[in-house]
Amino acid sequence: MTRGPQKQFDTEVALTKAMEVFWAQGYEAASLSELMKNMGIGKKSLYDTFGNKKSLFIKALEHYALTNVSQIRDRLLSEGSALENLKQLLLEWQQKHSQPGSCGCMFGTNIADFTTEDEEVAQLLRYYLQQLEDLFCTALTKAKDAGEISSSIEPRDLARFLVCTTQGVALVGRVMEDDLTLKGAISTALRFLEKS
Amino acid sequence: MTRGPQKQFDTEVALTKAMEVFWAQGYEAASLSELMKNMGIGKKSLYDTFGNKKSLFIKALEHYALTNVSQIRDRLLSEGSALENLKQLLLEWQQKHSQPGSCGCMFGTNIADFTTEDEEVAQLLRYYLQQLEDLFCTALTKAKDAGEISSSIEPRDLARFLVCTTQGVALVGRVMEDDLTLKGAISTALRFLEKS
Repeated sequence: MTRGPQKQFDTEVALTKAMEVFWAQGYEAASLSELMKNMGIGKKSLYDTFGNKKSLFIKALEHYALTNVSQIRDRLLSEGSALENLKQLLLEWQQKHSQPGSCGCMFGTNIADFTTEDEEVAQLLRYYLQQLEDLFCTALTKAKDAGEISSSIEPRDLARFLVCTTQGVALVGRVMEDDLTLKGAISTALRFLEKS
Repeated sequence: MTRGPQKQFDTEVALTKAMEVFWAQGYEAASLSELMKNMGIGKKSLYDTFGNKKSLFIKALEHYALTNVSQIRDRLLSEGSALENLKQLLLEWQQKHSQPGSCGCMFGTNIADFTTEDEEVAQLLRYYLQQLEDLFCTALTKAKDAGEISSSIEPRDLARFLVCTTQGVALVGRVMEDDLTLKGAISTALRFLEKS
């Protein structure tokens, strides 16, 4: 072992724990004491490593984005039919957000949680939504080129539609007691995609 | 004038002001001092008339629902083509939520703002989403009966889809700088409805 002071905790694990608190409760409701308890660290370690509550939140949001946008990219841009990949992603999204206790998408909950005047957070959230839109658009362009969706479809508009619909599904899933609403919504979106 | 103590403020006006604060900031971020300032009343009047912060919030949410669900009902169930009414509503929804400083739908922002464990609020929000779903379903059944949409459409599923998509549009509108995303989303939904 090396000598001298060193971190007594795993930064990655602590950040994941902070992310879980912010994700479930939103920024305002997440108290510093709850964050510290879940992260298993004290106030000094938190401030030294992550800065204040706001900068901890931004790091937690980046951590969420890194994991979740990668997963969506992997699913959408994997080998095979782009339309099938997209349909599979939408079905998985519906199942994930129909789970009891589902917290929604951390981008969406924070779009709602922050005042619209917080331009720093709004800019970050716009950036992540844009990443999702671009991934949808790439997959849809591939599907269009392969003749899987109509040649009259504008992939950019359809990608924007998918961003809004998936955000709505994740949001509504937070309060639903059963999976009927989300199943109805996603089965309808899939039907539209197939017939487009 | 009658003698004795009487309210020095208009309950309806004060409730509208409280609604505006909760709508813009969410439940947690709305401070009692800001609520009192916007409502133009003191702490005693607030507690005597509306109860604590939580019960004021629930009254404000009911006030929002009363106004907004009525407007949607009037638009969807007015005379003429049910499909045209629905398309008009979706266009108006897009325009409203594309406005700079748009706060989204108060149902959606509070779905995100409250922890999923608050069953009292979740139940109320589910009830309002159900009202929206039922209105969409009634309009879609009328459109189906009139041959305006395909006879193979299941109005209940399409209504659930519209609840999620409109919630997503209202949510995403909170952070967007221009109307491109919402226009793309709604124009795609309209295209699907026309081709369904």
